[in-house]
Amino acid sequence: MKMMFEYNWQVREEWYEWCKNITEEELLKVRTGGVGGILHTLFHIVDVEWSWIREIQGLPDFQESFEEYSSLERIRQLDESFRKEVRPFIESWDGSLENRIHMERLRDGSEFRLTWGEVLRHVIAHEIHHVGQLSVWAREIGGIPVSANLIRRGLSG
Amino acid sequence: MKMMFEYNWQVREEWYEWCKNITEEELLKVRTGGVGGILHTLFHIVDVEWSWIREIQGLPDFQESFEEYSSLERIRQLDESFRKEVRPFIESWDGSLENRIHMERLRDGSEFRLTWGEVLRHVIAHEIHHVGQLSVWAREIGGIPVSANLIRRGLSG
Repeated sequence: MKMMFEYNWQVREEWYEWCKNITEEELLKVRTGGVGGILHTLFHIVDVEWSWIREIQGLPDFQESFEEYSSLERIRQLDESFRKEVRPFIESWDGSLENRIHMERLRDGSEFRLTWGEVLRHVIAHEIHHVGQLSVWAREIGGIPVSANLIRRGLSG
Repeated sequence: MKMMFEYNWQVREEWYEWCKNITEEELLKVRTGGVGGILHTLFHIVDVEWSWIREIQGLPDFQESFEEYSSLERIRQLDESFRKEVRPFIESWDGSLENRIHMERLRDGSEFRLTWGEVLRHVIAHEIHHVGQLSVWAREIGGIPVSANLIRRGLSG
């Protein structure tokens, strides 16, 4: 679990660095697929990761709006502040939390029984999926996307 | 580990079903990003998963070429035959294999020390990343992509 989060954080950081060489217009441009833009995707990844970690712990979420965080700098600041909560949670993760139950309430009032293990893997897959979308858009604007390789990052310590 | 592979296999199956409603021309069309096309991506996912599982076990790989598998039916057959090897390997996975070492030989002759745990997570992330690319292309042709949600699939049993 920890290795996957560490991977996502490394890749995310590389995308932030990548964004520095792209014009604000391209970063904000509305695109086909996903949540529809490069910065918007990074914001969405940061928001969803934190929100799920809060939710399973029964802590209140607040609904961040992209409009208030529509610059690279503001997203990085938000990420940094959220990471202060997310990192200790992930670092203290152990197998005993795997099967804890989280009851998810859907909009129609129905409930879904999830395990914490499922939720954390959902968060991991969520980011990788959206980063795949970034990689297509990067090519569309003539750039070279950040490597998605998980190997050769020294993640096994 | 098993949950993530199961997730990928479910999502992949749903993409195969999705492809049935798309013309062969669209499925084969060369696109921007990734390996450059919908069927080519599915072939690449199947190939890479099997190849890594073979490689860490010291079993010979063969270099499949997309040209020989450029139809949905042929890719599904290839996937089915590879799955017969991959599924038992994943189902028998346990934590004791996590830190086994695989020496990866790069083209320049240098070697990289990987753990089996890293390799398996690389395979998982590899597929999710490429599926993110499929989701953009699906929207480009006016389709609705397969859901990337890991929750609500009954993966915790």
